[in-house]
Amino acid sequence: MARPFTAADFTDRMTRAAAQASAAGLSGVLVTPGADLLYLAGYSPISITERITMLAIHASRPPAMIVPALERPGAEPAPVALRDWADGDDAYAAAAELLDPDGAYAISDSAWAMHVLGLQQALPESRYVSMTDALPTLRAVKDAEELERMAAAGAAADAVFEEIATSRFSGRTEAEIAAELARLLIAHGHERAEFTIVASGPNGANPHHEESDRVVKEGDMVVLDFGGTKDGYGSDTTRTVHVGEPTSEEAEVYDVVRLAQQAAFDAVRPGAACQDVDRAARGVIAGAGYGERFIHRTGHGIGLTVHEPPYMIEGETRPIEPGMCFSIEPGIYLPGRFGVRIEDIVAATADGGRRLNDTSRDLRIVS
Amino acid sequence: MARPFTAADFTDRMTRAAAQASAAGLSGVLVTPGADLLYLAGYSPISITERITMLAIHASRPPAMIVPALERPGAEPAPVALRDWADGDDAYAAAAELLDPDGAYAISDSAWAMHVLGLQQALPESRYVSMTDALPTLRAVKDAEELERMAAAGAAADAVFEEIATSRFSGRTEAEIAAELARLLIAHGHERAEFTIVASGPNGANPHHEESDRVVKEGDMVVLDFGGTKDGYGSDTTRTVHVGEPTSEEAEVYDVVRLAQQAAFDAVRPGAACQDVDRAARGVIAGAGYGERFIHRTGHGIGLTVHEPPYMIEGETRPIEPGMCFSIEPGIYLPGRFGVRIEDIVAATADGGRRLNDTSRDLRIVS
Repeated sequence: MARPFTAADFTDRMTRAAAQASAAGLSGVLVTPGADLLYLAGYSPISITERITMLAIHASRPPAMIVPALERPGAEPAPVALRDWADGDDAYAAAAELLDPDGAYAISDSAWAMHVLGLQQALPESRYVSMTDALPTLRAVKDAEELERMAAAGAAADAVFEEIATSRFSGRTEAEIAAELARLLIAHGHERAEFTIVASGPNGANPHHEESDRVVKEGDMVVLDFGGTKDGYGSDTTRTVHVGEPTSEEAEVYDVVRLAQQAAFDAVRPGAACQDVDRAARGVIAGAGYGERFIHRTGHGIGLTVHEPPYMIEGETRPIEPGMCFSIEPGIYLPGRFGVRIEDIVAATADGGRRLNDTSRDLRIVS
Repeated sequence: MARPFTAADFTDRMTRAAAQASAAGLSGVLVTPGADLLYLAGYSPISITERITMLAIHASRPPAMIVPALERPGAEPAPVALRDWADGDDAYAAAAELLDPDGAYAISDSAWAMHVLGLQQALPESRYVSMTDALPTLRAVKDAEELERMAAAGAAADAVFEEIATSRFSGRTEAEIAAELARLLIAHGHERAEFTIVASGPNGANPHHEESDRVVKEGDMVVLDFGGTKDGYGSDTTRTVHVGEPTSEEAEVYDVVRLAQQAAFDAVRPGAACQDVDRAARGVIAGAGYGERFIHRTGHGIGLTVHEPPYMIEGETRPIEPGMCFSIEPGIYLPGRFGVRIEDIVAATADGGRRLNDTSRDLRIVS
């Protein structure tokens, strides 16, 4: 078990958030329930409701959080000053008291529109920008404790693949195999299975196909893309397996994706732009004539959530920093026929990348 | 089984939303994933991510929805025109094409701040107001099919109470009883158990206490507040039981809450203000000298979500309409000692209210 994060960890993170906001010309950071609040204050309300909970972090004064009075007991352990509001109070007037009236704030991406509109109305001179636009890398660089959790989640996902790959695919439905993946994720220590994509034969050509009652059969390519959270941190890996021997075309397409994935991994180094990783994968696939069949970005950041900045996509010029964790998952999708995708989570290191998934990337033949 | 909602149902609802928006002086309604989108278009993406999905409804033109290209296949059944955007596109520029550049819109409460800020930036002359502020009763008045689902969910929750009330409380932990409630909710046809509050003895004095390892013992008051969704619609009921015979003070406090709940129910009729229901309950409790111990609103709307407008709270002057469904749940909380709450879901009818929960409101003695 990883050691629990402490009040000192959260205070360090809040101090860093305030410094990043100041450097970006902002007054502070507004944090609502979800991954940001868990990261910065270790607090997660029982449920996210219409009642506003919001942490305000400024460089110039200690952090303070407004919470519904009913939820105050649960929030007490957070290392921040609490202010509560009760049903019938004007919640936005109460929240506004934590803010500079003419301040400019980064606010959690998933804060409710209702709340940001309420703040804009309560403080007409205030301004807001989403966390992804303002401080995209606040949670992106993982510390040693977080990397330990990420590595453990990746190893658990790898164990799931090794176990499912020895099972029989032919004759089972995608839904049955997906249920087995969910069961294995939990069995290997995840507290939650977040997604279990099983896309066989022509379904594999839809990168967001989840599962169906299609029965897998001899000759199918099968894309398995699954993950969850373990100790709060995400896993996400994809392997494409083949039921029986592949055709030469299938083997060739697979190999293009494998080489693209390797090229993208080799492009990971501190200072490289995120888009360089995308370009490396896309270059290999385009060079093989499949450029039009790679229809999504190469990767996404991962941590407390399974999709977060940085994104490995054309136009993302921000530099990779040691400690960033993201997926590298190129694919080729041939409509009506089959798809191939290979995905590892990679942690950037001082001199390159470290794969947090490392089951074989050679085409696995299953029965 | 209730009959499935059809494209015609969704089209009717979208037409009504557009008319309500026009009546409120708005250009239209913007709907993001969650209960609003499920209600208006029958669509729920597999997961809610940073990639924007948004339905735009105008009185002047057919509804149109922007979706991430990867998610388009899942959205095809929705009875709306689809426009997709791909990774690398400017998603907000694409979304803005569905809007009037200087339009005023109601937007789903839980739309991501990131998205509303992106729209404000893409269309600086556009304006937004939350659905709860602009069209609070859009989903509040349930039609006959919805009422049938609400009644079935309520009956299932009542069956859960009748079953748990015959079980032994003394000697079990709150957490064990909560797990049993969750199991019973599923056993009685809920697809999801949303909350299972078991608050015994002094824990009952915290209205948002969920459960703990406290062992329930002879002499405890125990607040049981539980619900989930059945056929998509919510249940939510609270009964307070007593392990063995109550003291005269406990019996008196219980009776005050029971009378307050009845008074609030009796105040339900079309045209009454929502706050009248709150006042009726509060009047009884204050009259008995416990006014300071009733520390939350009397009720909340319920339907596709378990907390939604209308709220039964001082200051809510909107009138009750037939078909509205909401909780009536007064309580008295004595810090360090015990709490009592009694809650039914009530549907407003043409001439009063209909309880969708109707297990006995007399104090149940359990073992």
